Amino acid sequence: MTQTTILPIDALFSRVEAIFLKAGLNAVQAGALARVIVAGERDACKSHGIYRIEGALRTVKAGKVKPDAVPVLDRNEGSAIVKVNAGGGFANPAFELGVPELAARARKLGIAALVINDCTHFSALWPEVEAVTNEGLAGLVMCPSYATVAPTGGNKPLLGTNPFAFGWPRKDTSPYVFDFATSVAARGEIELHRRAGKQLPEGWAIDADGNPTTDPEAALAGAMLPFGGHKGSAIGTMIELLAGIMIGDLTSPEVLDYLGTTTLAPFHGELIIAMSPEAFAKGRPGDPFARAEVLFEAIVGAGARLPSQRRFAARKKSEAEGVSLTAAEIEQLDRLLDKGLDAIA
Amino acid sequence: MTQTTILPIDALFSRVEAIFLKAGLNAVQAGALARVIVAGERDACKSHGIYRIEGALRTVKAGKVKPDAVPVLDRNEGSAIVKVNAGGGFANPAFELGVPELAARARKLGIAALVINDCTHFSALWPEVEAVTNEGLAGLVMCPSYATVAPTGGNKPLLGTNPFAFGWPRKDTSPYVFDFATSVAARGEIELHRRAGKQLPEGWAIDADGNPTTDPEAALAGAMLPFGGHKGSAIGTMIELLAGIMIGDLTSPEVLDYLGTTTLAPFHGELIIAMSPEAFAKGRPGDPFARAEVLFEAIVGAGARLPSQRRFAARKKSEAEGVSLTAAEIEQLDRLLDKGLDAIA
Repeated sequence: MTQTTILPIDALFSRVEAIFLKAGLNAVQAGALARVIVAGERDACKSHGIYRIEGALRTVKAGKVKPDAVPVLDRNEGSAIVKVNAGGGFANPAFELGVPELAARARKLGIAALVINDCTHFSALWPEVEAVTNEGLAGLVMCPSYATVAPTGGNKPLLGTNPFAFGWPRKDTSPYVFDFATSVAARGEIELHRRAGKQLPEGWAIDADGNPTTDPEAALAGAMLPFGGHKGSAIGTMIELLAGIMIGDLTSPEVLDYLGTTTLAPFHGELIIAMSPEAFAKGRPGDPFARAEVLFEAIVGAGARLPSQRRFAARKKSEAEGVSLTAAEIEQLDRLLDKGLDAIA
Repeated sequence: MTQTTILPIDALFSRVEAIFLKAGLNAVQAGALARVIVAGERDACKSHGIYRIEGALRTVKAGKVKPDAVPVLDRNEGSAIVKVNAGGGFANPAFELGVPELAARARKLGIAALVINDCTHFSALWPEVEAVTNEGLAGLVMCPSYATVAPTGGNKPLLGTNPFAFGWPRKDTSPYVFDFATSVAARGEIELHRRAGKQLPEGWAIDADGNPTTDPEAALAGAMLPFGGHKGSAIGTMIELLAGIMIGDLTSPEVLDYLGTTTLAPFHGELIIAMSPEAFAKGRPGDPFARAEVLFEAIVGAGARLPSQRRFAARKKSEAEGVSLTAAEIEQLDRLLDKGLDAIA
């Protein structure tokens, strides 16, 4: 039997925050990073949990993110665009700084955008989408990544796995939230197949010559494919245009040129759009939140699932019982707290 | 050899407009409908060309659209949302009325939305996306449809084919534009397989019991499937939420309830979001339009195609040489002009 330790969520947060502080991050960086990592662990989303700490520290050690950056808000009054310059730090504290102003602007104008520039992007988009829905707003979030995905019909990687996330606020229950890569699979899944010596499903990847492959090694040397054929490829391209080029930040090929590797957290920008259902629906029949529940009930009634439900169930359990960590995970946390950046190879 | 007639684009426009006027549409309805139909024919997009005239007239004859509606603009000053009530007429004149104000608002605020309510939606979204890019803005357009698509994992139709369209303006050339259904296939394609007595590809549809089927009859009695599995299903759901519920207009199940058929043009609303690349990129390095060209060149250089290129090539030819119609098509136009709504069964 594996020995496990149960930690209350806030105790886990303190440990993770302490690790980042020990590694030289300032308070805003350490706090924001610890919050998203603990959110991942809490939601049993292990691939975005404490497993990610080392990746963040590796990026710090490589000098590709500023551990002491202080994000700066540009209110950009008179506009529907709020901007935060992350100052070369992580995206997370920049997002936290910008979201109240984004929410105020969206409530005032009906729709508004938050642009984050010059950030190292870290982890999933769903914590950000949920922060928008917590304000009673619908949210759309997207960003580029490293160029690892070939546009449909193309023979080399030009797009990132470019995540696309959306959220709709629900009263008295968890929001409707999705957050997915616009590639068929995440790069990590290909890596897992390689380690397990397993072939990939068809349609995931092409080799370096642009031919379809099911060999993970060949796929890693080639490119992943977008989800949904030319439609997913088009959405991935749209994300390069809107959340890279339009906001004056790096595209996925530029990110890869800059970093020279996909093992560090990527440096680029991010686009968040918030919409006020109340403002849009004003003067129209029906309450948008009540009407959305009718749609959700019909979807569930037809046997389909709403996205993120597994995460929300895990969250409920973690909030009641705490988060369960293995002895190896506890040891890893202790080692990182003890050694700081020296723990990173 | 089939006899064909070559008509200059403006001559075709006059004929189509005259048909709608004869059928009792007022000038704003007739002009706007004729413009999108001629645009489809011009771009060799036959499924959105003159073939569609009868469907529009059938909807008029069924009393499901007001042929004399005059759309009303609500400038909604002080907000980033511009609204047009189509007054029960077609979406097209409502869009034409709203787009200059949308463009002005987006240029002023950086991002703005145009909501069209109480409209009969007609034809593709790309003419609207292109109208936004013609203003130098990036555009995102979406709307529901009839409930004919099952959410992934579900056993009955709850979503529409919910089109999603995007455009990015390019200097000195046609814009980057995509416009696709969020179902695997369009309903018309299933109908074409049925008529041809051909089986459907796997993954297109389920039967009335929710089981996968390749039989077009069974598919038409069941439901189509979203593109890209759960990801496309999530995007289709997002469109119901944003472009149905949030804007206070019908969802796809409500549209089908209201019409009782999928043979008439659907009655619902539409959401258009416009963004100013200049406003977003302000103060950042690089010109967003020039940077986008670098991305497009790389995509084409990797052997992939940009979307809509076939349409743009056909447009160039039509603009130079006119539009070629068969004798049967000319006869159909003559008959519709002669008989008006009496030509409709």
